[in-house]
Amino acid sequence: MLIRNAKVATLARSDSFGLIEAGAIAIDGSEIVWVGPEHALPERFRASPSHDAGGRLVTPALIDCHTHVVFGGNRAAEFELRLQGASYAEIAKAGGGIVSTVAATRAASADELLEQALPRVDALIADGVTLLEVKSGYGLDVETELKMLRVARAIPGHRPIDIRTSFLGAHAVAAEYTGRAEAYLEEQCLPALRAAHAEGLVDAVDGFCEGIAFSPAQIAQVFTVARDLGLPVKLHADQLSDLGGAALAAEFGALSADHLEYTQEAGAKAMAAAGTVAVLLPGAFYTLGETQRPPLSAFRARGVDVALATDCNPGSSPLTSLLLAMNMGCTLFGLTPLEALLGVTAHAAKALGASDRGRIVPGLRADLCLWDVAHPAELAYRIGFNPLHARVFGGAL
Amino acid sequence: MLIRNAKVATLARSDSFGLIEAGAIAIDGSEIVWVGPEHALPERFRASPSHDAGGRLVTPALIDCHTHVVFGGNRAAEFELRLQGASYAEIAKAGGGIVSTVAATRAASADELLEQALPRVDALIADGVTLLEVKSGYGLDVETELKMLRVARAIPGHRPIDIRTSFLGAHAVAAEYTGRAEAYLEEQCLPALRAAHAEGLVDAVDGFCEGIAFSPAQIAQVFTVARDLGLPVKLHADQLSDLGGAALAAEFGALSADHLEYTQEAGAKAMAAAGTVAVLLPGAFYTLGETQRPPLSAFRARGVDVALATDCNPGSSPLTSLLLAMNMGCTLFGLTPLEALLGVTAHAAKALGASDRGRIVPGLRADLCLWDVAHPAELAYRIGFNPLHARVFGGAL
Ligand SMILES: [Zn+2]
Ligand SMILES: [Zn+2]
Repeated sequence: MLIRNAKVATLARSDSFGLIEAGAIAIDGSEIVWVGPEHALPERFRASPSHDAGGRLVTPALIDCHTHVVFGGNRAAEFELRLQGASYAEIAKAGGGIVSTVAATRAASADELLEQALPRVDALIADGVTLLEVKSGYGLDVETELKMLRVARAIPGHRPIDIRTSFLGAHAVAAEYTGRAEAYLEEQCLPALRAAHAEGLVDAVDGFCEGIAFSPAQIAQVFTVARDLGLPVKLHADQLSDLGGAALAAEFGALSADHLEYTQEAGAKAMAAAGTVAVLLPGAFYTLGETQRPPLSAFRARGVDVALATDCNPGSSPLTSLLLAMNMGCTLFGLTPLEALLGVTAHAAKALGASDRGRIVPGLRADLCLWDVAHPAELAYRIGFNPLHARVFGGAL
Repeated sequence: MLIRNAKVATLARSDSFGLIEAGAIAIDGSEIVWVGPEHALPERFRASPSHDAGGRLVTPALIDCHTHVVFGGNRAAEFELRLQGASYAEIAKAGGGIVSTVAATRAASADELLEQALPRVDALIADGVTLLEVKSGYGLDVETELKMLRVARAIPGHRPIDIRTSFLGAHAVAAEYTGRAEAYLEEQCLPALRAAHAEGLVDAVDGFCEGIAFSPAQIAQVFTVARDLGLPVKLHADQLSDLGGAALAAEFGALSADHLEYTQEAGAKAMAAAGTVAVLLPGAFYTLGETQRPPLSAFRARGVDVALATDCNPGSSPLTSLLLAMNMGCTLFGLTPLEALLGVTAHAAKALGASDRGRIVPGLRADLCLWDVAHPAELAYRIGFNPLHARVFGGAL
């Protein structure tokens, strides 16, 4: 297939949109085989069936590299209670918080979890997403962690989208292990990880390193098992305090460290050296009313690649628009529109180890978006507006 | 028509959702004639053609009571320049700011303005909006102010939506009158107002009372003309500083005072006495990175009705989702989900003087939304997700 009469933002490198006016993209099967100005199109592609983009902007398709999109129930009642003035203690007493999501996720069948996740996946697909990371972590027991990962892996059977799964047993200590984090890790989290890996359900291993979750030593224990299993790692790091999570992630050669509001210079330096991507999650920052912003200037100075994701989850970020995450990344964190677009394409792919996509260059996968905008900066500029005209997934319009 | 098997949030009064489980709504033409539990449905409505809501939530349709949805061009380039570190002076030198929108609006034909506005209107309709306020104020000369209002009034000929127009000649001093605000008012703004009113294009008269716009005395001059013409007023008040705009609006019996971040106790008191609605605009607060929040507790204590709107405009709020404005109202300003829903229905209707709609009670207009949610709090809880199942506009599904 040939896409012609397009304004192509190739993102071939990370220092510009790589705009080609009056451009064309030749696709063979699911692979991009040529991109450039249409007048320079090689003879051998000229007879291909072509799609006229009508002068529209074409970018790599979007990639949401950090979500918790599979879960049971929702937390609207808790949202309402909090706005009515209830304290966190009162909400916890009313069964709120992550405990309520764990209970609903355990209670739901795999079919029910899938049915609840699909409308969220549909919202992301409508935004132009073709690759979605999904984490476990609302099971907190062997059986439910496996169920969540199986549900995530079932999504491509129902929707035209690719999935990467991250095992996040180290998301929280299960309520039945309160005060016994080590026992939780030994008896549930690590056995679940080994079982999930044996079943081929794990693309990466994630953790939540925070005062309210797991210590750096406990995360290192999980990451050591991941290394033994040959699995890459990523980490929820430095969101609410600086426990050195970014540096810990880098020490294990993590694909990404995520959140990073409290990361300091040393963490940024370690991430740069390890090639660890900084995944920023403005939806959680916005929802929690945080004021501490991630150290963007340190990331820029060190050359750390920055990605953006929805962090779609029922508590701190019930966000299902990656376009809106782009706007939030600019408005709340100060990313440029170019950084925001790289953050949901090329750099998001890197955060997932998906080296086969994220830019429009020959040899990469033909996952593309056609947009009704005149310039790529418009994608991040608008709020709550979706200019997607068409999505190409694996070469199919 | 009869809508049955619905969970109806009537909002009959402003102190609760007014939920009716297993409810029904009888509609005659464009009017609601009965609402209540289905088992109590009067015999005379039982033979009506019925629509099974499938247990879905039904609310009044949404009303966006403050927008600048008709304008030329966009400001994505300015958005990008600012994030690349350009100063306001540099942006102004590059032709940015409201001046660029005025130039693009003057240059565009009425057809072009309409064509550019419709995708924004479509986004709001997709959110369940059936009544939209549209302001002039990017013409700043007689001819272009009239053109904007004519375009706004033309929208219902192209889309199933009602429009209310506000004349906002006192939005900014036209560049050709810099330093001569009085001359601008005398020579352009007031003649435009009189001409627009003579053409029947004005539902209300608005102004921008701020250090960077018009003084209270200048606004009073415009409002006095409005009063002489028998037109209600509303005001962009106290957004960036407290000039007493809320009290000024109340003094003229304004339908609404809008923004209100810097309004103080006396302003809230005056608004309560005058029945002036407080229209909060979190999209602008978010985009401008403001930290001063409107005095919600004073509004609550005084009994001021609070509305929410997108403020859709190309500079400070390129927002085209009223559902997202609801979430922002809760997340950024602390509204409860009930206040947020009232703010885009009953109280938004009041802010437009549209006493014929905004609640589900007999005698009001049958503008309704059917939502795929279990509880009305979910409408404000989610971010960037649209659960609209169907929209009823004037009794038509
Ligand atoms: Zn997360
Ligand atoms: Zn406005």
